[in-house]
Amino acid sequence: MTSYQALQDRFGRNVVHDLRVRLDDTADPLAALLAAVGATGARLGELRLIAHERGRLLYDVQVFSRDDAQALAARDAAGGIEGVEVVAMRDPAMETHRGGACEMRGRTPIRSNTDLRIVYTPGVARVCRAIQDDPAAARAYTNLANKVAIVTNGTAILGLGDIGPLAGLPVMEGKSAIFWEFAGLSAEPILIDSHDADEIIETVVRIAPTFGAIQVEDIKAPECFRVTRELDRRLAMPVMHDDQYGTATIVLAGLYAALARTGRDIGEMTCAISGAGAAGTAIADLLLKAGVDDVVLCDSAGIIHRGRTERMNDAKRDLAEWTNKQNLSGTLADAMGGRTLFVGVSQPDIVSQDMVRSMAPEPIVFALANPVSEIARDDALAAGASIYADGRMMNNALAYPGIFRGALDAAAEAITERMMRAAAGALANLVPDGELMPEMMDRATHRAVADAVRAAAIS
Amino acid sequence: MTSYQALQDRFGRNVVHDLRVRLDDTADPLAALLAAVGATGARLGELRLIAHERGRLLYDVQVFSRDDAQALAARDAAGGIEGVEVVAMRDPAMETHRGGACEMRGRTPIRSNTDLRIVYTPGVARVCRAIQDDPAAARAYTNLANKVAIVTNGTAILGLGDIGPLAGLPVMEGKSAIFWEFAGLSAEPILIDSHDADEIIETVVRIAPTFGAIQVEDIKAPECFRVTRELDRRLAMPVMHDDQYGTATIVLAGLYAALARTGRDIGEMTCAISGAGAAGTAIADLLLKAGVDDVVLCDSAGIIHRGRTERMNDAKRDLAEWTNKQNLSGTLADAMGGRTLFVGVSQPDIVSQDMVRSMAPEPIVFALANPVSEIARDDALAAGASIYADGRMMNNALAYPGIFRGALDAAAEAITERMMRAAAGALANLVPDGELMPEMMDRATHRAVADAVRAAAIS
Repeated sequence: MTSYQALQDRFGRNVVHDLRVRLDDTADPLAALLAAVGATGARLGELRLIAHERGRLLYDVQVFSRDDAQALAARDAAGGIEGVEVVAMRDPAMETHRGGACEMRGRTPIRSNTDLRIVYTPGVARVCRAIQDDPAAARAYTNLANKVAIVTNGTAILGLGDIGPLAGLPVMEGKSAIFWEFAGLSAEPILIDSHDADEIIETVVRIAPTFGAIQVEDIKAPECFRVTRELDRRLAMPVMHDDQYGTATIVLAGLYAALARTGRDIGEMTCAISGAGAAGTAIADLLLKAGVDDVVLCDSAGIIHRGRTERMNDAKRDLAEWTNKQNLSGTLADAMGGRTLFVGVSQPDIVSQDMVRSMAPEPIVFALANPVSEIARDDALAAGASIYADGRMMNNALAYPGIFRGALDAAAEAITERMMRAAAGALANLVPDGELMPEMMDRATHRAVADAVRAAAIS
Repeated sequence: MTSYQALQDRFGRNVVHDLRVRLDDTADPLAALLAAVGATGARLGELRLIAHERGRLLYDVQVFSRDDAQALAARDAAGGIEGVEVVAMRDPAMETHRGGACEMRGRTPIRSNTDLRIVYTPGVARVCRAIQDDPAAARAYTNLANKVAIVTNGTAILGLGDIGPLAGLPVMEGKSAIFWEFAGLSAEPILIDSHDADEIIETVVRIAPTFGAIQVEDIKAPECFRVTRELDRRLAMPVMHDDQYGTATIVLAGLYAALARTGRDIGEMTCAISGAGAAGTAIADLLLKAGVDDVVLCDSAGIIHRGRTERMNDAKRDLAEWTNKQNLSGTLADAMGGRTLFVGVSQPDIVSQDMVRSMAPEPIVFALANPVSEIARDDALAAGASIYADGRMMNNALAYPGIFRGALDAAAEAITERMMRAAAGALANLVPDGELMPEMMDRATHRAVADAVRAAAIS
């Protein structure tokens, strides 16, 4: 199995295209074409032979590029080779999402009127009565125990910001496809047309009987905190804000794996976090609960500390109370000095090599800003980092499918910190030698997370 | 193809069971077993040979019965036959709904990290941006144009009444399975935990960006009227209350077919409706708009007329304004006298043969109360009815999948009376000789409805 980490460098380009080319077979231009594509800085993915037609070959060449300009340069370079005709350049993300990434299907074929009378009226009335008599029967006789709402208002979609719920729908559908693929869960996007936390809470509470669990997704801070906290308080079902605790679980998994690899203890860890929004806050919370000695958070105004007045709000005042033991003040550089762990969930390129050099010896650096990290891998390693990860390696999709599967299987009424630590531990246990994360595509990874979470929920 | 109507008598039992029996082959007790089952009044459906084991045969005998008592009598009768051992009696409705009747699935396999990067981040960001730039692109690049919300608060579930949204979920899942099977639509149950029309409206409006269309389902009158009317007014998407206009469309289709069969004109039709709730009101509306000369509605207090004070409400005062041309008063029997058409959406056995005899010659009788009609088929025909249908024949599932498919395909902003008349016409056109409804299981039926609705929406 090729690990995700090993594929990183090759696929460290964010834009994928399929370049359809017609080649004159007698000229045999394939090698020249690939060289020309490579010379633009774009990298080759797969090469698929589509057809051959009287001495001409039709290929789809998968091209990974940094941006559209590089993709267009690759296309033009290909077209400039003798014997190569560029037929089309397709965007497979657009093509994959055409018609949507998920769909609601019947689970039972309806091939006869008898089938219809069983799945619908009159047969279904017996199922309704069984649930009326014992509401717990809904877990067995509906899809409820597999149903997750993916709730968003579209205010913090990926790195795109407040693009609205509709433009955020492809992300929610993508998550639904991931839930289905890795955990067999029915995850339904729920787009809420509101910027008001109370309206969002009230809406979700009213439709909550529809679902077995709630994933809060891409709602901006600080609304996301209250939305998640209130839903968790008011609903007797698992509720998790993935941008917070999905990310935090993955960071903790990475930390567990790094500690195992370097033989260190979590109690030795002192952490600087860049980014005090949804993710940073949850990471601080989970790391401290897991035994990290101290965490200091920084936002664009520097270290968050008791007594700071600039750019504070309720959430940050609260953070100042339970982080930053020594009540340090200053810049991100001040926060990193002497620390053993850096976690970035903030902005590209804001960590210098000097800042890494100022950390404790052989520090651990998780620079998770997407698509460009706080500091590049090579720079961090050259400055002495013993372990490095970026946002492509530390993918939430390793955590949330199994967390929800396990919580639902246990009929848990919440997702607790204990369940998230169990998920992180299960992930760390599966990490291959020399890596930091287990293989996403291996279904056993997600099963192990689900099993650990279920066991933690029940015990 | 065996038509639904022809199957009626055989399957006119509402309870289905699979009786698993082990037969001693040497005694050859099958004929005796079937005779014994038949003697209880239960009827045989299918007979499936499951296994044979050293001279003994394992069969599943499908038994249709009127109620559980009859089913148990059939089981006991089977067990009393020499050489028959009853192994189990299973309820296939419960078994079919085990785990749910529908599920949300990914539409695209995720088999590699490249797949993941296309369906989710970073590739999905390109899809989001395309929709941000042009919201209409969501129709092409999400599942939106196939997504129907099935909205209920569980206050009028089938004949069961206010059993709550959770106990109503199997009905919504069954509808979802029907939408998928007959129209390829993704229909998502949305259970709303509220009895208040305004709360329901507000909740659906807030989550409306999630869906391409809204089906209001099993919300009791009079709340359902305001919920449907307001959602229709406030949302630029198809909204239909199936219990109202799904039923009305089917009644109109049956009327069209009956008129074609008897060579009469719709303008000759004068109609008495028993039941002035959601269905009766919509049937009155659609029949009048389609050209029926007059409609009189009756509820439990008799004919609804201008000046009536007993058991009136806003909805019924409104009804009195636009129905009952001659402002008749009196009982249901008074309403039916001299009329050419009776439609019942009310109570079992409330129409006598004398009441049918008092109608105009060769009247049309649609007695749709479920599971027991206002008057039984044989009684109505013996009293002179020229055409008879009950609720089992006139199944809404013939209409709503195609109506929503056609409306969504046309990107319609509403489901209009014209579109419903087109659906009724398409259904009537497909009715086999001597029948009243086309074949539910024939996919061409639903395609024809969708095509007619789409054409009506566009023109």
